[in-house]
Amino acid sequence: MKQCILEMTNRISITYCTQCRWLLRAAWMAQELLTTFEQELSELTLIPGTGGIFEVHANDALIWSRKEQGRFPDITELKQLVRDQIAPEKDLGHSDRKKES
Amino acid sequence: MKQCILEMTNRISITYCTQCRWLLRAAWMAQELLTTFEQELSELTLIPGTGGIFEVHANDALIWSRKEQGRFPDITELKQLVRDQIAPEKDLGHSDRKKES
Repeated sequence: MKQCILEMTNRISITYCTQCRWLLRAAWMAQELLTTFEQELSELTLIPGTGGIFEVHANDALIWSRKEQGRFPDITELKQLVRDQIAPEKDLGHSDRKKES
Repeated sequence: MKQCILEMTNRISITYCTQCRWLLRAAWMAQELLTTFEQELSELTLIPGTGGIFEVHANDALIWSRKEQGRFPDITELKQLVRDQIAPEKDLGHSDRKKES
């Protein structure tokens, strides 16, 4: 069986608190990122945690921590943070220009 | 900042074909597995691929290949396969007894 997987090395992880029931928003953000960065991402990992954790890492850099920021990212700023880390030249289109998607 | 992440070592990966637009079903299955195996899974990784690939690995063992099986798993049998690999003693409830969930 021949496999053809794109060779890339960009990894995202989203760690979410299961006690807070944040799987749904983590999985939604995962799908948004995998759609927007379809050509750039090699994998996206969902990691169950506890204690109110909600963190996003891009290639091992912490790009969002709910405890540090005091809130969840909105999806546009999360994409901008991911873009800055893994594809700084990428234009995110109208969402980069502060309009609603 | 204190993090409290459960110490487990069970990993699932779902590799899906982006050309076939299988992200949605991969992400759905991911959420089903993360919900059912909330206490057992340490991480679940979504991996974009091409060429019609749809594969599920549990701790590096290939437990589903669409090319080998000729079809997608239904969610009940996928959970049984994951259970057999990572938590063989776990009772999956009524779905194990061939009723609809």
